[in-house]
Amino acid sequence: MDIENIKKELKLEIDKERYNHTLRVVDIAKRLALVYRIDEKKVELAALLHDCGKYKDIDVLLKKVEEFGIILDIISKNNHHLIHSHLGAEIAKKKYDIVDEDILNAIKYHTTGRRDMSILEKVIFIADYIEPERDFDGIEDIRKLAFEDIDEAIIVSMENTIKYIIDKGLLIHPNTISTRNSLILLRNKNRRSWSDRQ
Amino acid sequence: MDIENIKKELKLEIDKERYNHTLRVVDIAKRLALVYRIDEKKVELAALLHDCGKYKDIDVLLKKVEEFGIILDIISKNNHHLIHSHLGAEIAKKKYDIVDEDILNAIKYHTTGRRDMSILEKVIFIADYIEPERDFDGIEDIRKLAFEDIDEAIIVSMENTIKYIIDKGLLIHPNTISTRNSLILLRNKNRRSWSDRQ
Repeated sequence: MDIENIKKELKLEIDKERYNHTLRVVDIAKRLALVYRIDEKKVELAALLHDCGKYKDIDVLLKKVEEFGIILDIISKNNHHLIHSHLGAEIAKKKYDIVDEDILNAIKYHTTGRRDMSILEKVIFIADYIEPERDFDGIEDIRKLAFEDIDEAIIVSMENTIKYIIDKGLLIHPNTISTRNSLILLRNKNRRSWSDRQ
Repeated sequence: MDIENIKKELKLEIDKERYNHTLRVVDIAKRLALVYRIDEKKVELAALLHDCGKYKDIDVLLKKVEEFGIILDIISKNNHHLIHSHLGAEIAKKKYDIVDEDILNAIKYHTTGRRDMSILEKVIFIADYIEPERDFDGIEDIRKLAFEDIDEAIIVSMENTIKYIIDKGLLIHPNTISTRNSLILLRNKNRRSWSDRQ
């Protein structure tokens, strides 16, 4: 399916607000792709489809989960917000004929992140986090950071997310923690090897 | 080894400050044991030995880790504060002849917690957290909560700890997250079954 057909189909599936958000994520993801040298077509497909599983109606969402045979972990079962990414990856594969595993993973892990994300996964994650309509304390710093040091931008955004989840009394997905841990380990390693060279 | 001999030995192994902290934890753990109806001897042994692996000198600590054949996970390797609990459980077993698995687990998991802790594990964890010399924002509320609802006290203390770790830029141990998640799942389940009875 080509981009124009995907857009037509998406408009029918997700609500207008979600579709407009999607276009903003596509725009910012393409700009990040230039900095981090990723194939534009891959980025566009991943960004366009990142929320293709985000049905507003919870009953529709759960019906789709069943339809696509998705096994939910206990955290996702208790926090419906986490379901749409896994569902989205399945829909992207079966309905939009995406076969590129990297694109499918970028969709699947765009909410929680995961250990050792690919650069495409990182771009989709952070583009979703910083799109122009997002507005919270510190967002401008993260927007700037995303173009300078995407790992650091993801660390900060994960830390915001963890604190937000705690204050809301929600469950924390283990992938959120391992994303932050793996990026901090990488940062520590880079700092050590940098100081070794001094 | 009886309590008096353990005390004598401990005094030689850990520094005075740590030993005095240990006695305060024993005291509060025994008071919690009355509320949660745990065997006093078990509580006393677990509390007395909870920090038996806490060597101040990091070289000594790492030497003991090797000596006792402990395999460290990547998070513990990067945060030495996490090492002493696992080491402590091994020392308790091999040097102080503790065979009771529940006591050994209470020592092993008193820093990170873990999913589905036993009541002894919970008591040692929270006694360590609230002993009289601890002083930080909100400590009085957690002290009170520990005697009324130990699960809730652990949730709040885990949340404080996670925020503290984030602000310090340290790694978060996955057990810390699964402790909080498992207790929140239990709370949600209890609330649901309570409202079902209304």
